Amino acid sequence: MNDFHVYDTTLRDGAQQERLNLSVEDKLVIARYLDQLGVGFIEGGWPGAIPKDTEFFNRAKTELTLRNATLAAFGSTRRPGLKVEDDPLVQALRDSGADVVTLVAKSHDRHVELALRTTLEENLAMVRETIEFLRAGGQRVFLDAEHFFDGYRDNPAYALEVVRTAAEAGAEVIALCDTNGGMLPDEVGEIVGAVLDGTGARLGIHCHNDTGCAVANTLAAVDAGATHVQGTLNGYGERTGNADLISIVANLQLKRGRKLVPESSLREATRIAHAVAEVTNVPPYSRQPYVGASAFTHKAGLHASAIKVDPNLYQHIDPADVGNDMRLLVSDMAGRASIELKGRELGYELGDDRELLTRITDRVKQMEACGYTFEAADASFELLLMEEVDGARPSFFEVESWRVITDSRPGQEAVSEATVKLRAGDERMIVTAEGNGPVNALDSALRGAIGKAYPVVEKFDLIDYRVRILESGHGTDAVIRVLIELSDGQDSWETVGVGHNLVEASWEALVDGVTYGLVRAQGRQAGD
Amino acid sequence: MNDFHVYDTTLRDGAQQERLNLSVEDKLVIARYLDQLGVGFIEGGWPGAIPKDTEFFNRAKTELTLRNATLAAFGSTRRPGLKVEDDPLVQALRDSGADVVTLVAKSHDRHVELALRTTLEENLAMVRETIEFLRAGGQRVFLDAEHFFDGYRDNPAYALEVVRTAAEAGAEVIALCDTNGGMLPDEVGEIVGAVLDGTGARLGIHCHNDTGCAVANTLAAVDAGATHVQGTLNGYGERTGNADLISIVANLQLKRGRKLVPESSLREATRIAHAVAEVTNVPPYSRQPYVGASAFTHKAGLHASAIKVDPNLYQHIDPADVGNDMRLLVSDMAGRASIELKGRELGYELGDDRELLTRITDRVKQMEACGYTFEAADASFELLLMEEVDGARPSFFEVESWRVITDSRPGQEAVSEATVKLRAGDERMIVTAEGNGPVNALDSALRGAIGKAYPVVEKFDLIDYRVRILESGHGTDAVIRVLIELSDGQDSWETVGVGHNLVEASWEALVDGVTYGLVRAQGRQAGD
Repeated sequence: MNDFHVYDTTLRDGAQQERLNLSVEDKLVIARYLDQLGVGFIEGGWPGAIPKDTEFFNRAKTELTLRNATLAAFGSTRRPGLKVEDDPLVQALRDSGADVVTLVAKSHDRHVELALRTTLEENLAMVRETIEFLRAGGQRVFLDAEHFFDGYRDNPAYALEVVRTAAEAGAEVIALCDTNGGMLPDEVGEIVGAVLDGTGARLGIHCHNDTGCAVANTLAAVDAGATHVQGTLNGYGERTGNADLISIVANLQLKRGRKLVPESSLREATRIAHAVAEVTNVPPYSRQPYVGASAFTHKAGLHASAIKVDPNLYQHIDPADVGNDMRLLVSDMAGRASIELKGRELGYELGDDRELLTRITDRVKQMEACGYTFEAADASFELLLMEEVDGARPSFFEVESWRVITDSRPGQEAVSEATVKLRAGDERMIVTAEGNGPVNALDSALRGAIGKAYPVVEKFDLIDYRVRILESGHGTDAVIRVLIELSDGQDSWETVGVGHNLVEASWEALVDGVTYGLVRAQGRQAGD
Repeated sequence: MNDFHVYDTTLRDGAQQERLNLSVEDKLVIARYLDQLGVGFIEGGWPGAIPKDTEFFNRAKTELTLRNATLAAFGSTRRPGLKVEDDPLVQALRDSGADVVTLVAKSHDRHVELALRTTLEENLAMVRETIEFLRAGGQRVFLDAEHFFDGYRDNPAYALEVVRTAAEAGAEVIALCDTNGGMLPDEVGEIVGAVLDGTGARLGIHCHNDTGCAVANTLAAVDAGATHVQGTLNGYGERTGNADLISIVANLQLKRGRKLVPESSLREATRIAHAVAEVTNVPPYSRQPYVGASAFTHKAGLHASAIKVDPNLYQHIDPADVGNDMRLLVSDMAGRASIELKGRELGYELGDDRELLTRITDRVKQMEACGYTFEAADASFELLLMEEVDGARPSFFEVESWRVITDSRPGQEAVSEATVKLRAGDERMIVTAEGNGPVNALDSALRGAIGKAYPVVEKFDLIDYRVRILESGHGTDAVIRVLIELSDGQDSWETVGVGHNLVEASWEALVDGVTYGLVRAQGRQAGD
């Protein structure tokens, strides 16, 4: 595994994504997750140029203990016309304490002339002197050859010269970067092969997804002899993002037999990808290869019937290899086969009672026609199953009424206040609670009202809340669907509510969510 | 362009995506958009098997006028053991009236035995007889060879036999399908080449994105001799989706010189991709290649400075070739260069006044540190510019107070009711309005209150509303950010609000949104 580099740049290049803003604490948390994934290198940022990154490397010295990965600092070659020892940004790379420094250098003559505004010779000197300087200080150096492929196409001799200069000065790897992302795999393979022939340097590859081929471009480079791959978690990055590192690793390890990370680490990939998405607060992309929530989700009734026979008939790998699960969707595209399988996934054997299965299937289709979706609300589906199997929906309290008011307040922020009246455990409760919004206030009031009869609800937390307007009608005609996710600190579950009023629909999902949480807490299941 | 087939299956394979539910009307609308894009074939659905699709093909006969594309009906070869003329699903394909029928057939021996539960010979007869039957009726036939690549690896002789049988029976194209999506480009290229050598049939390619290589796999197949590509808009499809058709077309046309669709149609790609996303109600993926909102969006200050010199230094194509725009983000990663460029994009020359530019930049960074984002709220950013340039923020009314109540009602749905008190045009107004939720009610009440002084606000509509909880703190400590989009029926604009209460933050965004709309309506700009 030491011969092949898996190099992560989530914290540096990935951070350039629109709407991604990481604090230093966020970066430290993510670095630990990356270490768990088993990557070889974690590029932590650009110390000196970005104040948050200078702080990250400082804090990393005492707060970050990495078991697998080596920390790398990213930075630029020295400024044109400046002595390397006089360049404060280069000094900052030394001060970062990182074992590895990855220097970005121009390798496209137009960029040297127009963006750097210096000569081709000076650029080579910048490369040579910065590498030698940092190596003299005891750090390992990699080089990112920026805009390499465009540069090679415009002036191959100069691009090769940059690579040779860097290798001779002691850079361990020269990563060829498709900075603008415009390459296609066939050409990447050709160019990487040509550079390997022309320089004999150890090559890496760094791709962006502007043509939808970042992963494939990376694989083409590896096929052509690159032994260092760069990418980001969840394909984060500017514009269309960087190459998705987990896709690269899974493809090479599971399909081409290369050992890049420990098998047990790859089995954590889904968990880690989602954990990092929680930190970045960028909603995970459900269709992401390997680790996406939908990556092994089957909808068409046709597929579900075949999967009953053998899951491998419709899956390219065992989802467990990357820590993901196979999921079956309950939807109007599915038929009884899907619902039977979904029921089994939840612990109910419906196949024995055809009449029950038909009744449930019809009810699901009818509710979905009204706007409900059970695809993202397993808990609501399970309550429906319980109702059909047991003859009655689980019920722990009787709601009389609810109300929520938000008032502006002069010179202060508004507060939302909800009042809930209900009967629980033989007692009539009236509870008023405040919240940061109407649904949050209702949640607090509801759980406050039933907390005496059912103390376990105090642990529940409203952790996600999604709204969709279903009809193009406006005002009071629109159909609104709300999906709520509650958690008890360990697990979480989702419920759905539909109606013409957003708060009413939220209330429905909330009551179901709390009810389901109580069923779980009591360890009950249909038929108990 | 007739020699190469661009074949879209958004309405059939794409429809198998999680959370995608299309009505017949939706499908007709999308078909017209696909026609505008210039695709050669539109696979409309599976008539006979899916009732909505039967209806689609019926209505298409009179309601769908296609100028470029040919409609294709998808279906299965006849059932095992049944005479083709007795199979109602095959009859439904005839009745659909589609000029082309695309038949899916098993080409993997294990699927024939385990999923179809018939013999390899019978499967070949099913292929042969169904093709001959439909051709005898005057329809053109294509064949989708399902699970082809897995089948070829397990039993290449049989897979080739399926292809030969189909070609001999008169199928114009045999599309090799990577149904499970597990292939990588090198192997796809090898197999397509081998099949072409072994059969001489005209080949197509149909890929899924389970390894992140759907587009690249498609290109590899084309390089190896395939002349028919299948894909979906926005990469819709089951699990990780089908190959993204616009990426395939743009790559082949803009980078490999193939003429697949009219240039003017390709320039409509971004508009069409987003228009279709509106119909499917699946939020567009901002990092989608070519047409994503972020595809040509630059954030890092470093890039923005270079772009001022020459946009081609950081872009792989001219975004206009696919109808997209270059965007610059205002964020704390950006510097004065980005803000200057963004100001220019909005019509303000800030470069002449360094002190003003510094003041604006500092204010943006400070607000972003509090949770504001201007990346998705151009209108809020422009109001900030106006405030700094003019010395005062535009103001059309003075708010005294607001309040919103949602009450449950026995036996009915709840209604949200908002009361707003303000001064506009020298008059004190108290207006109460109802809505389908708190923010909707406030919007109605606000515009009701200022409608007398400013009648133009009656045309405004609240069309999008997004909420994010920014801090991991709960209850009343969390920082909430709301993004609102208003429209006047022609254009739309976005504003942002931040606070500890969701309704308060929404109110802030709403007031800004209405204010901005009034500024636009009055044709004003800073400095007027």
